[in-house]
Amino acid sequence: METITSNQNSKVKEWKKLQSKKGRTKAGEYVIEGWHIVGEAINHHKQLLTVMVTNEDFLDELDFDSANTPVYLITPEIANHISSTETPQGVFAVLKTEDYHEKLPDNLKGSWLLLDNIQDPGNIGTMVRTADAAGISGIVFGQGTADIYNPKVVRAMQGSQFHMQLFSGNLLDWLAALKKHGVKTFGTELNDEAVPYSTVVPTDSFGLVMGNEGNGVSPEILSWTDQNLYIPMKGEAESLNVAVATGILIFHLCK
Amino acid sequence: METITSNQNSKVKEWKKLQSKKGRTKAGEYVIEGWHIVGEAINHHKQLLTVMVTNEDFLDELDFDSANTPVYLITPEIANHISSTETPQGVFAVLKTEDYHEKLPDNLKGSWLLLDNIQDPGNIGTMVRTADAAGISGIVFGQGTADIYNPKVVRAMQGSQFHMQLFSGNLLDWLAALKKHGVKTFGTELNDEAVPYSTVVPTDSFGLVMGNEGNGVSPEILSWTDQNLYIPMKGEAESLNVAVATGILIFHLCK
Repeated sequence: METITSNQNSKVKEWKKLQSKKGRTKAGEYVIEGWHIVGEAINHHKQLLTVMVTNEDFLDELDFDSANTPVYLITPEIANHISSTETPQGVFAVLKTEDYHEKLPDNLKGSWLLLDNIQDPGNIGTMVRTADAAGISGIVFGQGTADIYNPKVVRAMQGSQFHMQLFSGNLLDWLAALKKHGVKTFGTELNDEAVPYSTVVPTDSFGLVMGNEGNGVSPEILSWTDQNLYIPMKGEAESLNVAVATGILIFHLCK
Repeated sequence: METITSNQNSKVKEWKKLQSKKGRTKAGEYVIEGWHIVGEAINHHKQLLTVMVTNEDFLDELDFDSANTPVYLITPEIANHISSTETPQGVFAVLKTEDYHEKLPDNLKGSWLLLDNIQDPGNIGTMVRTADAAGISGIVFGQGTADIYNPKVVRAMQGSQFHMQLFSGNLLDWLAALKKHGVKTFGTELNDEAVPYSTVVPTDSFGLVMGNEGNGVSPEILSWTDQNLYIPMKGEAESLNVAVATGILIFHLCK
């Protein structure tokens, strides 16, 4: 095991570069960190390209193929340098960026969450984690939605990328395909034709589009959905955080 | 209207100090920012102690008593310096820290959200905003729960502090008082006696305790609740973000 003590080390520079989308795209790799997420990657048999720890004893807690994985002992300073959190746990791994599908699946029966131009990485990660908990079949990242490998998205997903099907695609193509396969699609906008979500009978096959934090779902996409849902507000707040709204909707809709 | 161009100005230093809890406690003031939140403060007749804008024209959009309120024109650099966001909108106001009640209300009929040691400011603010949307009567910040005037809490609340009753108190006192008034209380923990939340009949009078992100509700507090609820997970994620879980629970429970 090699010990690294300087932020100027070429390996550290490589890891640091993976904090940017450009760096991740170029390397085809991203960094995960923290006991829970690294543990989830191991449990789901993801290949760890590299493991970095601030304490040698940490390796005893991680059940991976250490004979065939480069492992580096790094200083707390380096951990701070490459971490996306303020208080890193000192456990990192590099993975391939491979958890994304570009092609629509053949079988579209199931429950699908479609993200239209969601901006906040924390919201996106939380939506993926929430959809995972609810038993959603897959999530589609539409154009404009932030990168799934963004460190803040990765942190908020809590490892859900290892057990969810994640897609990148054009939401109009998806809505057309869902319609063709007889899967009902819901938009989320308060308009004259919208119905309270609680009036919809739970089902195991649907598509739900959640929209941009400020502007909601784009009109073109809304026009392709079968029905619009809204969450009745009993208090004075005018809107909900988009991840909270997603939780309320999918925990009701999923049978 | 005075123009300020230096971060070294004494007023700027005062505003900057309000970013820390110590500074807020000492001054009895806190800063709000952004069009929506400042607008909410004005709509709810909160006294603006000071208004700061980066553009004189912004004042035309704000309907406050400008004759009796000190207004400062500040540079974008100062806006960045005193802002808690990366892209400030250039509209700020200073308010009194007065939206908190220490004493239990006489009438405990209603729906109450009790926060036990919630740590993340974004989660806390989102929970307040969600409770507001659901029509919750009041929120109790138990010991250990982060300060309501923390800039990240304030941002995530989106102005809900102006229309919600917010309390600071000992949750055991609250649970005892709710019990005495015949208000049913729910803990949130997955244990042998917990029931799925969806089996509870919606009601207009209850207390719901949400716990710490990592450790959940403390055992002592749980022992004082009438019933434990859990959210069945159909997928592989082991837990939900606490603000999302709050949304799912209170939008079901609130009649």
